Amino acid sequence: MYALRCPFPIRQYPHVLLSHGGGGRLMNDLISKMFIHAFGPKPASGLHDSTVLELPAGKIAFTTDSFVVNPLFFPGGDIGTLAVNGTVNDLAMSGARPLYLSLGFIIEEGLSMEDLWMIVRSIKKAADLAGIKIVTGDTKVVEHGHGDGIFINTSGIGIIEHDLSIAPGNIKEGDVILANGPIGRHGIAIMAGREGLDFETTIESDCAALNGVVKALLEARIEIHCLRDLTRGGLASALNEIARDSSKIIRIEEASVPVEEQVASACAILGFDPLYVANEGRFIAFVPAAAACEALEVLRAHPLGQGACRIGEVTRERGGLVMLKSILGATRVLDMISGEQLPRIC
Amino acid sequence: MYALRCPFPIRQYPHVLLSHGGGGRLMNDLISKMFIHAFGPKPASGLHDSTVLELPAGKIAFTTDSFVVNPLFFPGGDIGTLAVNGTVNDLAMSGARPLYLSLGFIIEEGLSMEDLWMIVRSIKKAADLAGIKIVTGDTKVVEHGHGDGIFINTSGIGIIEHDLSIAPGNIKEGDVILANGPIGRHGIAIMAGREGLDFETTIESDCAALNGVVKALLEARIEIHCLRDLTRGGLASALNEIARDSSKIIRIEEASVPVEEQVASACAILGFDPLYVANEGRFIAFVPAAAACEALEVLRAHPLGQGACRIGEVTRERGGLVMLKSILGATRVLDMISGEQLPRIC
Repeated sequence: MYALRCPFPIRQYPHVLLSHGGGGRLMNDLISKMFIHAFGPKPASGLHDSTVLELPAGKIAFTTDSFVVNPLFFPGGDIGTLAVNGTVNDLAMSGARPLYLSLGFIIEEGLSMEDLWMIVRSIKKAADLAGIKIVTGDTKVVEHGHGDGIFINTSGIGIIEHDLSIAPGNIKEGDVILANGPIGRHGIAIMAGREGLDFETTIESDCAALNGVVKALLEARIEIHCLRDLTRGGLASALNEIARDSSKIIRIEEASVPVEEQVASACAILGFDPLYVANEGRFIAFVPAAAACEALEVLRAHPLGQGACRIGEVTRERGGLVMLKSILGATRVLDMISGEQLPRIC
Repeated sequence: MYALRCPFPIRQYPHVLLSHGGGGRLMNDLISKMFIHAFGPKPASGLHDSTVLELPAGKIAFTTDSFVVNPLFFPGGDIGTLAVNGTVNDLAMSGARPLYLSLGFIIEEGLSMEDLWMIVRSIKKAADLAGIKIVTGDTKVVEHGHGDGIFINTSGIGIIEHDLSIAPGNIKEGDVILANGPIGRHGIAIMAGREGLDFETTIESDCAALNGVVKALLEARIEIHCLRDLTRGGLASALNEIARDSSKIIRIEEASVPVEEQVASACAILGFDPLYVANEGRFIAFVPAAAACEALEVLRAHPLGQGACRIGEVTRERGGLVMLKSILGATRVLDMISGEQLPRIC
């Protein structure tokens, strides 16, 4: 259906109007002829204020994320892809199987209806790929000049079907830290898209749903202690958050952290440190040293883990710090970034 | 705690900076010293990408809503109160007991940190009053001029503890329609706040959490067929959506629809029809005629149903329309509003 014609009269309404969020007939038209057309049939009992779902007893994961990326379309994806994968990944990082997604649009008056339809198709495609169902939504429109094209919130519910407790507080001394592939592509793709930079080859965002590769680790019965996807703030911020929340000292070898040559060159030109650049399809896994080799094999056998490698370990000291052994051999504290390298990366 | 001092250094950062959404240290400070301070302790296992919750087996309700109300503060509430109650009410309208709430902030750079703190306190207070827990969140900051103060998304999970199916598809011929009180206060309060209008007395928003009054109906074992809160588009749009989704014809008596005198006067001055004006603490209930008297008694015994009354009924015809018998005795189709009366009412 990704290529299907939209039954909503885009020619009649080439741009989103305030009334498309006003709760009246125009909003109902947009919802039924574009959103419900794309995301599936409305329930037999009629659209209602909330959706009723059946869940088995047990533990669920629940998460929310808003997406304000600029530009809306970038090499390797768009805000729609990002909004689905970002929340799917947050669920996957708790070891949950993503089931249900909500979708909240805040649209700026004047957004091209064609762009909205492209974003809606991306959302549908990404949700199908990740195996998550869009079950509820909301649409608001703000006046031109009081938003920026479109902001999207997604919240997700997943189910936890194992007995592991996957969280920062559960990392152990001696744990090995694995990454599923080279870092920094998303941030550089956005930067290039935003500034109209032209590198020799197009660097595409790594944006992807990580629930499949996490499922592979779980099915192989790897004793996962923690997972974390590397988004805003990059690898360095993710490691710092986990070190702080676990009061452990984490050691990373810079030479072991994979960075593709074109990303490294772009970072050098732009003055960025790839350790702080955002990703949207990369994660780190903390596993016991004894399970590291098997975990690496499982990762490398998956399309989203082919570039997986070991990047560091949890030391036996207490602290709440990240130490980096640089390429030159010196060891220093790898701090959390103070502000940010690049606003509105996701 | 609603009056407590905020441990976040508001004097040092009197306005929200882009870096407060950048994923680095400033964002972590804002989250830990303001949000976590207000909304409760972080889990022992550390903050993670999603929250893990225990749910009993059975049916849940899931909903999402974004709030873009302008102005942020208005008589009777603010965007924080609204963001909690709006989602609590969407859950309650499915007959669910609200349990968990997510909170997504999209903040415009430059928002007063004092205003943010006031909104955070309102959220905490409203969540406590409604008995819902804030369990996960997200913070984004967009550049000045690309947002409007703050937009808030809340998504909610509730649990359904009865066997009723409360949805538009379940209304029956002969059902009586009850409203829990006089309509139109929220829309007029916002309008007055926005335009600096000064009516003789201040009209306060009716913003309130409706889960308590719905619980009272359920506990009295009223056979509820459908519930709907009256938000954007007002009573007329809610009735039209339900008529359409159930293919029934609904009849309303204008003289039976309660409107407070000061709201009626304000509507007359502003040229609004109260049937289309937004509410945030009003709902309609469809119940069998035989249960209508008891349901009215239950409603009137609750603080949020003191002004409850019967406003109409579901006819025995098929159609998908709302018919209004006007005060003058003429009957006409009460249509869904085409655009909207007032943008950004919620």
